[in-house]
Amino acid sequence: MSRVLNFYPGPAALPIEALEEAQNELLDWQKTGMSVLEISHRSKEFDAVHNETIDLLKKIYGIPDNYSVLLLQGGATLQFAMIPMNLIGNGQTASYVVTGSFSKNAFKAAKTLKSIHLACSTEEDGKHFRIPKPEEINLAPGSVYCHLTSNNTIFGTQWKSFPEYGEVPLACDMSSDILSRRVDFKPFGLIYAGAQKNLGPAGVTVVIIRNDLVDSSQEGLPDILSYKVLVSKNSLFNTPSCFGIYMMNKVLKWVKKKGGLAFIEQQNEEKAKLLYDVIDENPEFYVSKVEKDSRSFMNVTFNLPSEDLLTKFIEDAKTENIIGVKGHRSAGGIRVSIYNSNNLENVRVVSQFMKRFVEKNG
Amino acid sequence: MSRVLNFYPGPAALPIEALEEAQNELLDWQKTGMSVLEISHRSKEFDAVHNETIDLLKKIYGIPDNYSVLLLQGGATLQFAMIPMNLIGNGQTASYVVTGSFSKNAFKAAKTLKSIHLACSTEEDGKHFRIPKPEEINLAPGSVYCHLTSNNTIFGTQWKSFPEYGEVPLACDMSSDILSRRVDFKPFGLIYAGAQKNLGPAGVTVVIIRNDLVDSSQEGLPDILSYKVLVSKNSLFNTPSCFGIYMMNKVLKWVKKKGGLAFIEQQNEEKAKLLYDVIDENPEFYVSKVEKDSRSFMNVTFNLPSEDLLTKFIEDAKTENIIGVKGHRSAGGIRVSIYNSNNLENVRVVSQFMKRFVEKNG
Repeated sequence: MSRVLNFYPGPAALPIEALEEAQNELLDWQKTGMSVLEISHRSKEFDAVHNETIDLLKKIYGIPDNYSVLLLQGGATLQFAMIPMNLIGNGQTASYVVTGSFSKNAFKAAKTLKSIHLACSTEEDGKHFRIPKPEEINLAPGSVYCHLTSNNTIFGTQWKSFPEYGEVPLACDMSSDILSRRVDFKPFGLIYAGAQKNLGPAGVTVVIIRNDLVDSSQEGLPDILSYKVLVSKNSLFNTPSCFGIYMMNKVLKWVKKKGGLAFIEQQNEEKAKLLYDVIDENPEFYVSKVEKDSRSFMNVTFNLPSEDLLTKFIEDAKTENIIGVKGHRSAGGIRVSIYNSNNLENVRVVSQFMKRFVEKNG
Repeated sequence: MSRVLNFYPGPAALPIEALEEAQNELLDWQKTGMSVLEISHRSKEFDAVHNETIDLLKKIYGIPDNYSVLLLQGGATLQFAMIPMNLIGNGQTASYVVTGSFSKNAFKAAKTLKSIHLACSTEEDGKHFRIPKPEEINLAPGSVYCHLTSNNTIFGTQWKSFPEYGEVPLACDMSSDILSRRVDFKPFGLIYAGAQKNLGPAGVTVVIIRNDLVDSSQEGLPDILSYKVLVSKNSLFNTPSCFGIYMMNKVLKWVKKKGGLAFIEQQNEEKAKLLYDVIDENPEFYVSKVEKDSRSFMNVTFNLPSEDLLTKFIEDAKTENIIGVKGHRSAGGIRVSIYNSNNLENVRVVSQFMKRFVEKNG
């Protein structure tokens, strides 16, 4: 078996230790004589994994006690609809900051449901290369929340600090940088993320929600779309994505074993530096339009001087076992996604490849 | 490793062949050097599995060409909300037949969203022991659909034939008996099912929808809740539950190899007969309130003469490797779930155990 270096933007690389454990116990889990894929979500064995997963996330991430953690289905995209449904009442509004494709989708989904306000957009010719300055963001008066996307996977930008609006909580899509660095939860009312980048496989969505927002959320929704019901049922209102939660449990234990969030944050900074240093040393060859202080530590994007070189870069990378670096069709170029599971050694291979590639072709 | 005989109501037993294949390739799938858990849902490898899974289901189940197949997240429970959202327009209504807990939940969810009509309920003292006769069902005039639940997992009842209402299509939750027998699709506008009983692990939801209903479905919904958008994107509007789809692919291939739907149907009839025969031979001991012509071929439910015997039955069963037969808390008693993956030999073990148990304790 030869494993590749996987830099897909998500679903993405998982820790090999988590995969090996899952493989070993796939036919007989915890001596139940069953696969985890076959066991009731109401069994004591699954219930223990479910609750442990929530506890691990709370502890590793430092989530304060006045927040609830939900493990749902439907991806961040379903949250684009559930957040306004649950949090915006009659006659109320919320503000949206658009910094990329997914935050635009969140804005569009909310707009089909409620009267919301575009507080800021960084779009230029359909693209986004920066995080806005605080003074560019104009909240609508009385906003029940301000929505933003902490890391823009497609364009490779990331908020380095978050605005604080006092009474107006942030509702933040952290799909592509959750658990990648320490977070001060104070400005946040709600944080959500698809698991398939930093937490586990596709099919699980994490929602971290402040309890007062649950309490004051809208009544009269179908149960499956109601935070109030889902929190009261500890995410087990219906059958969850059991295997996804089980894998997330293993990924969180791996994070803990590695040294927790402090280690992860430091490693992510070092990884990003390895790649951005090569870009900065070769600014004519590795062209990045992303503003330096908006650079993502999760998705490093850049372009090459020609389409031929771009194709050659992707092909040469493949011969060195580097997979998944083709940029998103709407951004073009190269994107190297360096989520938590990609360690320093893997990223060093890419950085050395980039250096050699510019030497040969620059 | 010792595998048990798993009669859980769902998530439920999977074919050992499917589990072994998944285990073998969990670290390196199709020589990609990646796990299927790590690969992009936009990769050609995953796309092939996704499309093949839909094709397999269409062919094995005999789904006519004028239906689309969606592979979604959120369980049947999310469909309880999506169906009325998409299919009931302003001033329109739909009729609901309530024959168990889940059909009641479907009715309640729809009622939060639209003005719908209860066409029939078989509830007596909070329980359901029968499928209604055609003359008991009173459709509201102009109903855009009639909703029913083909198999009631908790109480152990099942529709043996379906009503046909001409212009009014059936919208049917088949979570617990999808792909268990041949189906004439003509009366159905929409069929949906959580995968975790007959199709694969939890986390995938199948929706089979007639294309004219997609075309005429409501506008102005968030994309993630719109059948129109989801069909146009071939269920890949956002990241799907990739691993669930991959496992469903393996389960469908197993069905095909076994002899397809004809084999499955025949085996399911034989399996059910093995258990109902023991019940009928010992009607004072294995007490079933379910009307004979409403008996489920998927979930065989019965009670015992005392709580002590009930406890003893579950404990003795466990010593013979029989797991998951405790009835749902709202129905009590015993429930033996004999979905497709449980073969005749497994069910024969239960039937023989039941015979011995009544000999010893009757």
